[in-house]
Amino acid sequence: MAEILDRLGEILEARKDADPRSSYVASLYHKGQDAILRKISEEATETILAAKQGDREQIVYETADLWFHTLVLLASEDLRPGDVCRELERRFGVSGIEEKAGRGD
Amino acid sequence: MAEILDRLGEILEARKDADPRSSYVASLYHKGQDAILRKISEEATETILAAKQGDREQIVYETADLWFHTLVLLASEDLRPGDVCRELERRFGVSGIEEKAGRGD
Amino acid sequence: MAEILDRLGEILEARKDADPRSSYVASLYHKGQDAILRKISEEATETILAAKQGDREQIVYETADLWFHTLVLLASEDLRPGDVCRELERRFGVSGIEEKAGRGD
Amino acid sequence: MAEILDRLGEILEARKDADPRSSYVASLYHKGQDAILRKISEEATETILAAKQGDREQIVYETADLWFHTLVLLASEDLRPGDVCRELERRFGVSGIEEKAGRGD
Repeated sequence: MAEILDRLGEILEARKDADPRSSYVASLYHKGQDAILRKISEEATETILAAKQGDREQIVYETADLWFHTLVLLASEDLRPGDVCRELERRFGVSGIEEKAGRGD
Repeated sequence: MAEILDRLGEILEARKDADPRSSYVASLYHKGQDAILRKISEEATETILAAKQGDREQIVYETADLWFHTLVLLASEDLRPGDVCRELERRFGVSGIEEKAGRGD
Repeated sequence: MAEILDRLGEILEARKDADPRSSYVASLYHKGQDAILRKISEEATETILAAKQGDREQIVYETADLWFHTLVLLASEDLRPGDVCRELERRFGVSGIEEKAGRGD
Repeated sequence: MAEILDRLGEILEARKDADPRSSYVASLYHKGQDAILRKISEEATETILAAKQGDREQIVYETADLWFHTLVLLASEDLRPGDVCRELERRFGVSGIEEKAGRGD
């Protein structure tokens, strides 16, 4: 199921040289990093508002928007979804979910 | 690679009835929805600051934190990572990445 | 100088019954609380990005936007700029600026 | 009433050379700009959560926190509350509150 993330990573990589007018993502790259970061902030807030609304369908929708725009940021920095998954694997793959508690934040 | 998300979803589901003192996540569930939402906002901002710093390793680290806390929100609402992946699949799986542009936001 | 805040509070109060098409603020009230909250989040992020840019003029501009939208929220809740100033006065007016440190956050 | 903002601006200016251990604000300056920006983001989110809770007292409290941390940012950039008030005066002082609508955002 989650292979869509890898596929999206590849699509987003391929779009980096596209004409800004050719797609939403190409236009976002063209506007620059701050435009991508604004979207990450915006979609985080939309996720929060959906949760406060108690609208589960909307939570899924806004979380997808939030993940998507982090994928755009990753691609813009020559990073891949797999880099984030590896970091999660490193934290939670073996010893389980406890590492975070030990980080003290 | 991305199967870690599904696995994390299962772990997070299993932790929902755990003693709040038993893990970071159990304590987060216990504090309630607003505590989870504060973390989503906080990690979005950390991702933004890492990007402005131009620190690629930190971008991966903070994005992992952000995804992780959205997974906690999903679990707390009886949702699964697969629900978000299906939404991304729905948008981008067939027609490619253009739908977003058509949404006008 | 800061009397502009009180004056803005009065203007914003007066706009609450205005036709949504008559002004930006009237349209924001009409869209509802979430629309106001989205703007507070957005302008906080704009302030952060202006600071990272090191653009002092832009910091002033975005902080004004942020304060303005908190004033809209206050008015929408029948609150006044003076309520916030009184809270700041309560914290910092007599004993100075130390109370915050004692709050432990 | 709003003169507390100017007074706070002066206090915050005076604290810029203080020992980081001497006060909350001195420690915040010492941690650097990102620490201040994290607080602005955090308090914006707290304001949003207070509004969603419908807790008017908490809205005032969190808005005071948010304004306070923007004042810390201003001081750290050698800016003053009066600079923001002048910007609001410029926008709304004469022609009223309509300029924003004309800005198209």
